[in-house]
Amino acid sequence: MNHCLETGGKHVEPAHFRLMMACAEICRTSAHFMLINTPHHKHTCKECAEICAECAQDCKRIGGMDECVAICEACANSCRQMAA
Amino acid sequence: MNHCLETGGKHVEPAHFRLMMACAEICRTSAHFMLINTPHHKHTCKECAEICAECAQDCKRIGGMDECVAICEACANSCRQMAA
Amino acid sequence: MNHCLETGGKHVEPAHFRLMMACAEICRTSAHFMLINTPHHKHTCKECAEICAECAQDCKRIGGMDECVAICEACANSCRQMAA
Amino acid sequence: MNHCLETGGKHVEPAHFRLMMACAEICRTSAHFMLINTPHHKHTCKECAEICAECAQDCKRIGGMDECVAICEACANSCRQMAA
Repeated sequence: MNHCLETGGKHVEPAHFRLMMACAEICRTSAHFMLINTPHHKHTCKECAEICAECAQDCKRIGGMDECVAICEACANSCRQMAA
Repeated sequence: MNHCLETGGKHVEPAHFRLMMACAEICRTSAHFMLINTPHHKHTCKECAEICAECAQDCKRIGGMDECVAICEACANSCRQMAA
Repeated sequence: MNHCLETGGKHVEPAHFRLMMACAEICRTSAHFMLINTPHHKHTCKECAEICAECAQDCKRIGGMDECVAICEACANSCRQMAA
Repeated sequence: MNHCLETGGKHVEPAHFRLMMACAEICRTSAHFMLINTPHHKHTCKECAEICAECAQDCKRIGGMDECVAICEACANSCRQMAA
Protein backbone atom coordinates (compact mmCIF):
# COMPACT_ATOMS: atom_id res chain seq x y z
CA MET A 1 0.00 0.00 0.00
CA ASN A 2 2.85 2.35 0.74
CA HIS A 3 4.20 1.92 -2.80
CA CYS A 4 0.80 2.78 -4.30
CA LEU A 5 0.44 5.78 -2.02
CA GLU A 6 3.89 7.12 -2.92
CA THR A 7 3.43 6.51 -6.65
CA GLY A 8 -0.01 8.13 -6.81
CA GLY A 9 -1.93 8.52 -10.08
CA LYS A 10 -3.84 5.39 -11.05
CA HIS A 11 -2.31 3.64 -8.01
CA VAL A 12 -4.63 5.64 -5.76
CA GLU A 13 -7.74 5.34 -7.92
CA PRO A 14 -10.58 4.51 -5.52
CA ALA A 15 -11.32 1.01 -6.89
CA HIS A 16 -7.67 -0.03 -6.82
CA PHE A 17 -6.64 1.38 -3.48
CA ARG A 18 -9.84 0.18 -1.82
CA LEU A 19 -9.00 -3.31 -3.06
CA MET A 20 -5.46 -3.04 -1.58
CA MET A 21 -6.89 -2.01 1.80
CA ALA A 22 -9.50 -4.77 1.72
CA CYS A 23 -6.77 -7.27 0.88
CA ALA A 24 -4.53 -6.22 3.79
CA GLU A 25 -7.52 -6.44 6.12
CA ILE A 26 -8.86 -9.86 5.09
CA CYS A 27 -5.34 -11.33 5.16
CA ARG A 28 -4.95 -10.22 8.78
CA THR A 29 -8.38 -11.52 9.73
CA SER A 30 -7.77 -14.88 8.10
CA ALA A 31 -4.41 -15.20 9.85
CA HIS A 32 -6.10 -14.33 13.16
CA PHE A 33 -8.86 -16.91 12.56
CA MET A 34 -6.20 -19.56 11.93
CA LEU A 35 -4.30 -18.45 15.05
CA ILE A 36 -7.35 -18.87 17.28
CA ASN A 37 -8.22 -22.08 15.44
CA THR A 38 -11.87 -21.27 14.75
CA PRO A 39 -13.59 -23.49 12.14
CA HIS A 40 -14.83 -20.25 10.53
CA HIS A 41 -11.33 -19.74 9.14
CA LYS A 42 -12.45 -21.71 6.10
CA HIS A 43 -14.92 -18.95 5.24
CA THR A 44 -12.52 -16.06 5.73
CA CYS A 45 -9.80 -17.91 3.80
CA LYS A 46 -12.23 -18.44 0.91
CA GLU A 47 -13.00 -14.71 0.89
CA CYS A 48 -9.29 -13.96 1.21
CA ALA A 49 -8.52 -16.11 -1.84
CA GLU A 50 -11.13 -14.18 -3.88
CA ILE A 51 -9.84 -10.77 -2.83
CA CYS A 52 -6.18 -11.73 -3.40
CA ALA A 53 -6.99 -13.06 -6.86
CA GLU A 54 -8.80 -9.81 -7.66
CA CYS A 55 -5.81 -7.84 -6.36
CA ALA A 56 -3.43 -9.81 -8.56
CA GLN A 57 -5.57 -9.03 -11.62
CA ASP A 58 -5.86 -5.35 -10.79
CA CYS A 59 -2.12 -5.00 -10.15
CA LYS A 60 -1.51 -6.65 -13.55
CA ARG A 61 -3.91 -4.19 -15.21
CA ILE A 62 -2.11 -1.18 -13.71
CA GLY A 63 1.33 -2.65 -14.47
CA GLY A 64 4.79 -2.32 -12.97
CA MET A 65 3.88 -4.37 -9.92
CA ASP A 66 5.12 -7.85 -10.83
CA GLU A 67 6.24 -8.60 -7.28
CA CYS A 68 2.83 -7.65 -5.91
CA VAL A 69 1.09 -9.82 -8.52
CA ALA A 70 3.25 -12.83 -7.61
CA ILE A 71 2.62 -12.44 -3.86
CA CYS A 72 -1.14 -12.01 -4.31
CA GLU A 73 -1.32 -15.12 -6.52
CA ALA A 74 0.72 -17.17 -4.03
CA CYS A 75 -1.49 -15.96 -1.19
CA ALA A 76 -4.67 -16.76 -3.16
CA ASN A 77 -3.37 -20.31 -3.68
CA SER A 78 -2.58 -20.87 0.01
CA CYS A 79 -5.96 -19.49 1.01
CA ARG A 80 -7.77 -21.76 -1.46
CA GLN A 81 -6.06 -24.74 0.17
CA MET A 82 -6.99 -23.59 3.67
CA ALA A 83 -10.59 -23.06 2.59
CA ALA A 84 -10.92 -26.53 1.04
CA MET B 1 -14.93 -11.09 26.35
CA ASN B 2 -13.78 -9.48 29.56
CA HIS B 3 -16.87 -10.76 31.39
CA CYS B 4 -16.21 -14.33 30.19
CA LEU B 5 -12.56 -14.09 31.15
CA GLU B 6 -13.36 -12.81 34.65
CA THR B 7 -16.12 -15.36 35.21
CA GLY B 8 -14.06 -18.32 34.04
CA GLY B 9 -15.38 -21.91 34.12
CA LYS B 10 -17.51 -22.77 31.12
CA HIS B 11 -17.14 -19.15 29.95
CA VAL B 12 -13.55 -19.90 28.96
CA GLU B 13 -14.22 -23.30 27.42
CA PRO B 14 -12.26 -23.36 24.13
CA ALA B 15 -15.29 -23.58 21.82
CA HIS B 16 -17.11 -20.73 23.54
CA PHE B 17 -14.24 -18.32 24.00
CA ARG B 18 -12.92 -18.95 20.50
CA LEU B 19 -16.37 -18.02 19.20
CA MET B 20 -16.31 -14.77 21.23
CA MET B 21 -12.90 -13.86 19.80
CA ALA B 22 -13.98 -14.72 16.25
CA CYS B 23 -17.09 -12.58 16.73
CA ALA B 24 -15.14 -9.52 17.93
CA GLU B 25 -12.79 -9.93 14.97
CA ILE B 26 -15.34 -10.35 12.18
CA CYS B 27 -17.40 -7.42 13.54
CA ARG B 28 -14.34 -5.18 13.29
CA THR B 29 -13.50 -6.40 9.81
CA SER B 30 -17.04 -5.92 8.56
CA ALA B 31 -17.16 -2.40 10.02
CA HIS B 32 -13.82 -1.66 8.30
CA PHE B 33 -15.07 -3.03 4.97
CA MET B 34 -18.12 -0.76 5.22
CA LEU B 35 -15.89 2.19 6.16
CA ILE B 36 -13.70 1.76 3.08
CA ASN B 37 -16.80 1.04 1.01
CA THR B 38 -15.59 -2.13 -0.66
CA PRO B 39 -18.27 -4.26 -2.39
CA HIS B 40 -16.78 -7.25 -0.53
CA HIS B 41 -18.48 -5.98 2.63
CA LYS B 42 -21.49 -8.09 1.64
CA HIS B 43 -19.41 -11.24 2.09
CA THR B 44 -17.92 -10.28 5.44
CA CYS B 45 -21.32 -9.09 6.70
CA LYS B 46 -22.83 -12.45 5.72
CA GLU B 47 -20.09 -14.24 7.66
CA CYS B 48 -20.56 -11.79 10.53
CA ALA B 49 -24.29 -12.57 10.67
CA GLU B 50 -23.53 -16.29 10.91
CA ILE B 51 -20.95 -15.90 13.65
CA CYS B 52 -23.13 -13.48 15.65
CA ALA B 53 -26.10 -15.88 15.44
CA GLU B 54 -23.87 -18.72 16.63
CA CYS B 55 -22.62 -16.51 19.49
CA ALA B 56 -26.17 -15.69 20.55
CA GLN B 57 -27.02 -19.41 20.67
CA ASP B 58 -23.91 -20.30 22.61
CA CYS B 59 -24.42 -17.48 25.12
CA LYS B 60 -27.99 -18.76 25.61
CA ARG B 61 -26.71 -22.29 26.20
CA ILE B 62 -24.25 -21.11 28.87
CA GLY B 63 -26.82 -18.83 30.48
CA GLY B 64 -26.69 -15.61 32.48
CA MET B 65 -25.75 -13.51 29.48
CA ASP B 66 -29.07 -12.08 28.33
CA GLU B 67 -27.57 -8.74 27.37
CA CYS B 68 -24.94 -10.46 25.23
CA VAL B 69 -27.59 -12.61 23.54
CA ALA B 70 -29.69 -9.54 22.69
CA ILE B 71 -26.71 -7.63 21.24
CA CYS B 72 -25.55 -10.60 19.15
CA GLU B 73 -29.03 -11.12 17.75
CA ALA B 74 -29.40 -7.43 16.90
CA CYS B 75 -25.98 -7.45 15.23
CA ALA B 76 -26.82 -10.61 13.28
CA ASN B 77 -29.98 -8.89 11.97
CA SER B 78 -28.13 -5.74 10.86
CA CYS B 79 -25.47 -7.82 9.16
CA ARG B 80 -28.06 -9.89 7.33
CA GLN B 81 -29.53 -6.66 5.93
CA MET B 82 -26.10 -5.37 4.88
CA ALA B 83 -25.34 -8.69 3.18
CA ALA B 84 -28.60 -8.76 1.20
CA MET C 1 -11.25 7.33 4.27
CA ASN C 2 -13.79 6.62 1.57
CA HIS C 3 -14.49 10.34 1.16
CA CYS C 4 -10.77 11.08 0.73
CA LEU C 5 -10.37 8.25 -1.73
CA GLU C 6 -13.35 9.41 -3.83
CA THR C 7 -12.29 13.06 -3.75
CA GLY C 8 -8.68 12.36 -4.70
CA GLY C 9 -6.11 15.14 -5.24
CA LYS C 10 -4.59 16.38 -2.00
CA HIS C 11 -6.91 14.02 -0.12
CA VAL C 12 -4.79 11.09 -1.26
CA GLU C 13 -1.42 12.75 -0.72
CA PRO C 14 0.76 10.13 1.02
CA ALA C 15 1.18 12.02 4.31
CA HIS C 16 -2.53 12.75 4.65
CA PHE C 17 -3.93 9.39 3.63
CA ARG C 18 -1.34 7.52 5.68
CA LEU C 19 -2.48 9.53 8.69
CA MET C 20 -6.13 8.61 8.00
CA MET C 21 -5.24 4.91 7.82
CA ALA C 22 -3.13 5.12 10.99
CA CYS C 23 -6.02 6.84 12.75
CA ALA C 24 -8.58 4.18 11.78
CA GLU C 25 -6.16 1.49 12.95
CA ILE C 26 -5.20 2.96 16.33
CA CYS C 27 -8.87 3.73 17.11
CA ARG C 28 -9.75 0.06 16.55
CA THR C 29 -6.82 -1.14 18.62
CA SER C 30 -7.63 1.20 21.49
CA ALA C 31 -11.28 0.11 21.45
CA HIS C 32 -10.13 -3.53 21.48
CA PHE C 33 -7.76 -2.89 24.39
CA MET C 34 -10.64 -1.34 26.35
CA LEU C 35 -12.89 -4.28 25.42
CA ILE C 36 -10.44 -6.84 26.77
CA ASN C 37 -9.74 -4.56 29.74
CA THR C 38 -5.96 -4.61 29.55
CA PRO C 39 -4.13 -1.94 31.59
CA HIS C 40 -2.10 -1.21 28.43
CA HIS C 41 -5.16 0.58 27.04
CA LYS C 42 -3.79 3.74 28.66
CA HIS C 43 -0.80 3.63 26.30
CA THR C 44 -2.77 2.97 23.14
CA CYS C 45 -5.34 5.63 24.10
CA LYS C 46 -2.51 8.14 24.60
CA GLU C 47 -1.18 7.30 21.13
CA CYS C 48 -4.71 7.44 19.75
CA ALA C 49 -5.20 10.94 21.19
CA GLU C 50 -2.00 12.11 19.48
CA ILE C 51 -2.89 10.63 16.11
CA CYS C 52 -6.48 11.94 16.25
CA ALA C 53 -5.23 15.45 17.11
CA GLU C 54 -2.81 15.29 14.19
CA CYS C 55 -5.64 14.12 11.91
CA ALA C 56 -7.86 17.00 13.02
CA GLN C 57 -5.07 19.47 12.16
CA ASP C 58 -4.37 17.90 8.80
CA CYS C 59 -8.06 17.80 7.85
CA LYS C 60 -8.26 21.52 8.78
CA ARG C 61 -5.24 22.27 6.58
CA ILE C 62 -6.79 20.51 3.57
CA GLY C 63 -10.20 22.07 4.22
CA GLY C 64 -13.81 21.10 3.50
CA MET C 65 -13.83 18.41 6.14
CA ASP C 66 -15.42 20.15 9.13
CA GLU C 67 -17.29 17.04 10.22
CA CYS C 68 -14.09 15.01 10.19
CA VAL C 69 -12.26 17.68 12.18
CA ALA C 70 -15.00 17.73 14.84
CA ILE C 71 -15.03 13.92 15.18
CA CYS C 72 -11.24 13.68 15.42
CA GLU C 73 -11.14 16.40 18.09
CA ALA C 74 -13.90 14.72 20.10
CA CYS C 75 -12.11 11.39 19.82
CA ALA C 76 -8.78 12.94 20.87
CA ASN C 77 -10.50 14.35 23.98
CA SER C 78 -12.06 11.02 24.98
CA CYS C 79 -8.76 9.25 24.44
CA ARG C 80 -6.89 11.78 26.56
CA GLN C 81 -9.32 11.06 29.40
CA MET C 82 -8.92 7.30 29.03
CA ALA C 83 -5.13 7.70 29.04
CA ALA C 84 -5.05 9.82 32.19
CA MET D 1 -3.58 -18.34 22.20
CA ASN D 2 -5.07 -21.58 20.94
CA HIS D 3 -2.62 -23.58 23.08
CA CYS D 4 -3.59 -21.61 26.21
CA LEU D 5 -7.28 -22.00 25.45
CA GLU D 6 -6.96 -25.77 24.94
CA THR D 7 -4.81 -26.25 28.03
CA GLY D 8 -7.05 -24.21 30.33
CA GLY D 9 -6.36 -23.78 34.05
CA LYS D 10 -3.84 -21.05 34.78
CA HIS D 11 -3.42 -20.58 31.02
CA VAL D 12 -6.82 -18.90 30.89
CA GLU D 13 -6.43 -16.84 34.07
CA PRO D 14 -7.70 -13.35 33.20
CA ALA D 15 -4.36 -11.54 33.60
CA HIS D 16 -2.48 -14.06 31.47
CA PHE D 17 -4.96 -14.54 28.69
CA ARG D 18 -5.66 -10.81 28.46
CA LEU D 19 -1.94 -10.27 27.99
CA MET D 20 -1.86 -12.87 25.18
CA MET D 21 -4.75 -11.12 23.42
CA ALA D 22 -3.15 -7.69 23.87
CA CYS D 23 0.10 -9.06 22.47
CA ALA D 24 -1.52 -10.52 19.34
CA GLU D 25 -3.31 -7.21 18.78
CA ILE D 26 -0.37 -4.83 19.21
CA CYS D 27 1.82 -7.05 17.01
CA ARG D 28 -0.72 -6.77 14.21
CA THR D 29 -1.08 -3.02 14.66
CA SER D 30 2.67 -2.47 14.66
CA ALA D 31 3.06 -4.58 11.52
CA HIS D 32 0.28 -2.55 9.87
CA PHE D 33 1.92 0.74 10.90
CA MET D 34 5.17 -0.43 9.32
CA LEU D 35 3.30 -1.56 6.19
CA ILE D 36 1.70 1.85 5.69
CA ASN D 37 4.99 3.50 6.63
CA THR D 38 3.62 5.94 9.19
CA PRO D 39 6.21 7.59 11.48
CA HIS D 40 3.95 6.63 14.39
CA HIS D 41 5.19 3.04 14.00
CA LYS D 42 7.96 3.96 16.45
CA HIS D 43 5.37 4.46 19.19
CA THR D 44 3.43 1.27 18.53
CA CYS D 45 6.66 -0.72 18.23
CA LYS D 46 7.79 0.65 21.61
CA GLU D 47 4.48 -0.44 23.15
CA CYS D 48 4.77 -3.77 21.34
CA ALA D 49 8.25 -4.34 22.83
CA GLU D 50 6.87 -3.72 26.33
CA ILE D 51 3.90 -6.04 25.90
CA CYS D 52 6.01 -8.80 24.32
CA ALA D 53 8.56 -8.58 27.17
CA GLU D 54 5.71 -8.83 29.69
CA CYS D 55 4.30 -11.84 27.79
CA ALA D 56 7.69 -13.58 27.85
CA GLN D 57 7.89 -13.11 31.62
CA ASP D 58 4.36 -14.31 32.23
CA CYS D 59 4.82 -17.38 30.01
CA LYS D 60 8.00 -18.17 32.01
CA ARG D 61 6.07 -17.84 35.28
CA ILE D 62 3.36 -20.26 34.11
CA GLY D 63 5.93 -22.67 32.65
CA GLY D 64 5.93 -25.23 29.85
CA MET D 65 5.92 -22.58 27.15
CA ASP D 66 9.59 -22.28 26.21
CA GLU D 67 8.85 -21.78 22.54
CA CYS D 68 6.43 -18.96 23.34
CA VAL D 69 8.98 -17.31 25.64
CA ALA D 70 11.66 -17.43 22.93
CA ILE D 71 9.36 -15.94 20.29
CA CYS D 72 8.14 -13.15 22.58
CA GLU D 73 11.71 -12.22 23.51
CA ALA D 74 12.82 -12.20 19.87
CA CYS D 75 9.82 -10.04 18.96
CA ALA D 76 10.51 -7.65 21.85
CA ASN D 77 14.09 -7.24 20.57
CA SER D 78 13.01 -6.50 16.99
CA CYS D 79 10.42 -4.03 18.21
CA ARG D 80 12.95 -2.24 20.39
CA GLN D 81 15.15 -1.76 17.30
CA MET D 82 12.23 -0.45 15.24
CA ALA D 83 11.30 1.96 18.03
CA ALA D 84 14.83 3.37 18.39
